[in-house]
Amino acid sequence: MAQHKHSPYLEDIPLAEALARWRAALAAAGLAGPLPGEWVTLEAAAGRVTAEPVWARISSPHYHAAAMDGYAVAAEDTRGASEAQPLRLAVGAAGCAGRAFYVDTGDPLPPGANAVIMVEDVQPVQTADGAEIEILAPVAPWQHVRPMGEDMVATELILPANHRLRPQDIGAAAGAGHTRLNVRRRPRIAIQPTGTELVAPGSDLKPGDIVEYNSLVIAAMVTEWGGLPTRLSPLADDYAAIRDRVLEAAATHDLVIVNAGSSAGSEDFTARIVAELGELLVHGIAIRPGHPVILGILTLPGDAASLAEARRVPIIGLPGYPVSTALTCELLVGPTVAAWLGRPEAERPTVEAALTRKVVSPQGDEEFLRVTLGQVGERIVATPLPGGSGVLMSLVRADGIVRIPRGDQGYEPGAAVTVHLLRAPEALRRTIVAIGSHDLTLDLLADELGQRYPGHTLSSANVGSLGGLLALARGEAHLAGSHLLDEATGDYNTAYIRRLLPQTPVVLLGFVEREQGLIVPRGNPKGIRSLSDLARPDVTFINRQRGAGTRVLLDFRLRQADISPRVVQGYERQEFTHLAVAAAVASGAADCGMGILAAARALDLDFVPLDHERYDLVIPERFYESALLAPLLAIIRDPAFAARVEALGGYATPAIGRVLDRLPGAPG
Amino acid sequence: MAQHKHSPYLEDIPLAEALARWRAALAAAGLAGPLPGEWVTLEAAAGRVTAEPVWARISSPHYHAAAMDGYAVAAEDTRGASEAQPLRLAVGAAGCAGRAFYVDTGDPLPPGANAVIMVEDVQPVQTADGAEIEILAPVAPWQHVRPMGEDMVATELILPANHRLRPQDIGAAAGAGHTRLNVRRRPRIAIQPTGTELVAPGSDLKPGDIVEYNSLVIAAMVTEWGGLPTRLSPLADDYAAIRDRVLEAAATHDLVIVNAGSSAGSEDFTARIVAELGELLVHGIAIRPGHPVILGILTLPGDAASLAEARRVPIIGLPGYPVSTALTCELLVGPTVAAWLGRPEAERPTVEAALTRKVVSPQGDEEFLRVTLGQVGERIVATPLPGGSGVLMSLVRADGIVRIPRGDQGYEPGAAVTVHLLRAPEALRRTIVAIGSHDLTLDLLADELGQRYPGHTLSSANVGSLGGLLALARGEAHLAGSHLLDEATGDYNTAYIRRLLPQTPVVLLGFVEREQGLIVPRGNPKGIRSLSDLARPDVTFINRQRGAGTRVLLDFRLRQADISPRVVQGYERQEFTHLAVAAAVASGAADCGMGILAAARALDLDFVPLDHERYDLVIPERFYESALLAPLLAIIRDPAFAARVEALGGYATPAIGRVLDRLPGAPG
Repeated sequence: MAQHKHSPYLEDIPLAEALARWRAALAAAGLAGPLPGEWVTLEAAAGRVTAEPVWARISSPHYHAAAMDGYAVAAEDTRGASEAQPLRLAVGAAGCAGRAFYVDTGDPLPPGANAVIMVEDVQPVQTADGAEIEILAPVAPWQHVRPMGEDMVATELILPANHRLRPQDIGAAAGAGHTRLNVRRRPRIAIQPTGTELVAPGSDLKPGDIVEYNSLVIAAMVTEWGGLPTRLSPLADDYAAIRDRVLEAAATHDLVIVNAGSSAGSEDFTARIVAELGELLVHGIAIRPGHPVILGILTLPGDAASLAEARRVPIIGLPGYPVSTALTCELLVGPTVAAWLGRPEAERPTVEAALTRKVVSPQGDEEFLRVTLGQVGERIVATPLPGGSGVLMSLVRADGIVRIPRGDQGYEPGAAVTVHLLRAPEALRRTIVAIGSHDLTLDLLADELGQRYPGHTLSSANVGSLGGLLALARGEAHLAGSHLLDEATGDYNTAYIRRLLPQTPVVLLGFVEREQGLIVPRGNPKGIRSLSDLARPDVTFINRQRGAGTRVLLDFRLRQADISPRVVQGYERQEFTHLAVAAAVASGAADCGMGILAAARALDLDFVPLDHERYDLVIPERFYESALLAPLLAIIRDPAFAARVEALGGYATPAIGRVLDRLPGAPG
Repeated sequence: MAQHKHSPYLEDIPLAEALARWRAALAAAGLAGPLPGEWVTLEAAAGRVTAEPVWARISSPHYHAAAMDGYAVAAEDTRGASEAQPLRLAVGAAGCAGRAFYVDTGDPLPPGANAVIMVEDVQPVQTADGAEIEILAPVAPWQHVRPMGEDMVATELILPANHRLRPQDIGAAAGAGHTRLNVRRRPRIAIQPTGTELVAPGSDLKPGDIVEYNSLVIAAMVTEWGGLPTRLSPLADDYAAIRDRVLEAAATHDLVIVNAGSSAGSEDFTARIVAELGELLVHGIAIRPGHPVILGILTLPGDAASLAEARRVPIIGLPGYPVSTALTCELLVGPTVAAWLGRPEAERPTVEAALTRKVVSPQGDEEFLRVTLGQVGERIVATPLPGGSGVLMSLVRADGIVRIPRGDQGYEPGAAVTVHLLRAPEALRRTIVAIGSHDLTLDLLADELGQRYPGHTLSSANVGSLGGLLALARGEAHLAGSHLLDEATGDYNTAYIRRLLPQTPVVLLGFVEREQGLIVPRGNPKGIRSLSDLARPDVTFINRQRGAGTRVLLDFRLRQADISPRVVQGYERQEFTHLAVAAAVASGAADCGMGILAAARALDLDFVPLDHERYDLVIPERFYESALLAPLLAIIRDPAFAARVEALGGYATPAIGRVLDRLPGAPG
């Protein structure tokens, strides 16, 4: 295998400087400004951006129009009318003159008329000379009339340039006499995945394969911003093949994005290709995630035969880890597309929130921290999501992003931070925050909540049972799943709540009972039968994190069996969920781990039962009674939900939804 | 013409009750819940809504992956290594065993390895037996490794049902082993315009014609919400034709919308058609604009031959005035589409603002008031837009909607109101609020601002020069256009500013000089030559509103000429802009009006010059110095802008951008 080589290019500059270089280079190449317009029908124009101002060609209404059903008259003709002295006007009809004319709403006023009397306000009278109406009061000029130009007057500015067309704008343009509009051409953006290890989604996977989905993410972003993405077929790490494809794509696109290969490894070709074909502006930006980013401008040779001039085409290399890809795409491609459409850079709405955990940030980078959010009482709390740039689920689960400036070393718990929202701000009010022990049944609960109550979400952070109670004590969650065994009484949770939540009135709600045991590979090759096997030198274990109920149970049983944790191989290796423990066993990283049957089943593993344990929900009274939690409690108490839980296997629900205890708390 | 007939159906019920009836009827017909799913490719899934939860089929990574370029080892093999006692491991290669293996980032760990040492941290050594590496420190298990399932573990919940798919969600679904997703079918919505008076956009118009654009507006809204609109060709007011078309559309759509014909006039057929074909649930809702709304459920006969059962299809009749159409579509169709997609009802973000004017609201209706918004200093101010349900431009210009509850009679100036935003909240910070006299050059300025500074807007409310100075005094605007002649000095604006803004340091900025005169029909048929002609009994005049600078000038000149306003026919008829005055003259509603040359030219009218006048900008010092106004001032001072102004005709720009005066204000 090739030795690792450092590219001469990789540097480390602040984001603002990288963007400034990029903008300056685009401007120098004449590529900074909005794209030219193209004419589209009104039907196709919604959501597009105007390339020039839209002026009214005609007035609307283009005539004086009756605004009511009634009689059009000249206001002067009604002077002096009163109940005492009614006034009569002859009703005009086709072919015979008159001074009052029946009009329906929208009809044009006949010549000479300048007001409408509502049909309810006149008395029709039949005389020898024909129809008349009797009027009991004078009317003011322009009463019940929509005068010409009431809505818009010819030559008036209807819509400015660089305006994103909303439904009402399309109507106004039609009303102003337009049938087509000049809108900004959508920028064409080529997306080139590279990497010998890439395979298409749905492929049979062998170790080393990586599913290529970054191009799907980039394409969806570009579409959302108003661009036209082209997803090119992936290429292996082959300098010449990538270079040729880049040249080909540049010929027909406004921007070429190369995904991965942007670092400085032996198979990272993008920077060298950009340097060969044009100018390398930036290689490496001091942001995390996302460091290895490439910005450049290609120069395509002119064509002497067709007299075409050399063309300059911008190129961006995005890093390969999915969170880095999405983030750097938003930071660099987003503003570029906006500028080409003549639009301001999209800004996410922000909220102020309190961090629930300490955050350490590398001083040299601007960090983009993914957080979940929840409104707990009066406060909005932000909980950092674990996981590096490879953990796309951290971006899927995130409600927002905290930008930690370069030079900051991080924040203490409780620090006030500004969060850039990934969800609608109003969604926060419908988010139930669960922090505590993880259980698969919480996933089921989250799914049922979203299905039965659209827009309501259950956001779970998994920090173990003790961590959950501490989060409740700090007012950071609405509820906590907990399965903390009190070794003195054999009871669950109550003693811990008394100790950790002494001030808080709390409801202990029954949820599920579940089988705890040892998760072992299919066929149980090492013949593990009980906890005492963990002391065997040939058995490696994978543990749960400190504070997890499963960990408490393990430590209790180990003490009961008089087994020192020191003799358990892998005791210090921690995972944060049951499924992660099962995955460690499935992968051969450990011979066994403690967890629940459901997790073993999910990965088709075997299971050595040890115990039943109670997994309850701890809910502060003030949230238990809240409208926010009512839908969740209704689902928990629905037998259909209990049935779905039991169908998982390894669960019983004898006390689901039942209040097991109310702990009143002591007055503070 | 037919007499006006009252439908027996029209009632007047609160919006909440109408929505409750609608939801109950949909539920009874089995049409309330989300639509079934359909399978689409990942590429087509962005923006769609999940119809079922998405669970991970595979783990990601699906193997233990190197997170760095370096050497994969078993952590146990490195125990005891130190700088003093380096430890050597044989490097394995194809065909020969070893205890360290070179890996690139993303490569699978070889069997037995559980950690990676970065390439920078080892010393390669060549020995007689082959390659070795020298290690100076022990490594922890799982160092620089992305363990299997780090991102997602098979069986884990990736996305809940009823979730709108964002770009990162598409990536996660691909990473979890999916190639297609089950998403909610888009509701199919037929839009049927009706009305004998309707013509297509771009038609040559004769009086009484109405351009049919409501279906464009409705279709764009439906698309925005995720539905599939079908715009049907307009039908004349013909009971049988509309009934047959409704039946036909209902056979292939989830919802039929009939636009106009929803009132109770002689040609309003929708309610009767609904009653004939099914059940009329609601006819008339107590909202303004929007009163005549129809909600119903059609029953389509089953087909004995195909054994099809009777099918029930909801139908909505929307009123015809464009603001009513758009508003009632949003209030009734919007939530219906959301429910069918399993989504929460879209909520517009809100801000609190202070009303700048008194608002009177009819007590019986819930009113939806269109307002413009601006952040002026610390306050957000909301200025109600004039115009009834026929003034679509009030919705185009509006930044938000204030809902005035049924029973409220309105608000006093300064009242705090909640505004539902029609623009992005952050756009408010880039909005310059001009309240004062109107001039066409402000439209030009607004257009230049949007073109040169995307996202920046100039929002103008036209209340006349005096109104503008009063708005500045109340802190409701950033600047005011003003052309107030001081009759004592012959100077403009300064005396008025001293009187009306005694506390406020103000900059008086030169803008344009313009020709004022009498706008008369082409050919000047009544031979109007000077102001004295206004006293002629055969000449009708159209005036500007009280407080407008043009009005002040007129009154001054009338006094000079010793003409009493009483003898001017039409003196009491007021328009609020120059163009509206010109339109009144163009339509024959008046023989002349006072205004500027540009307005006369715009409508191809003749012009009798009377005067030159200065039109200045009055800007409080604190805004004059602000970053918000800097772009506007730059444009005003750009000779290219002055040239564009002069090209309009009737304008000169001798002092454009020059500070004419600084009025320091008195300390409060």
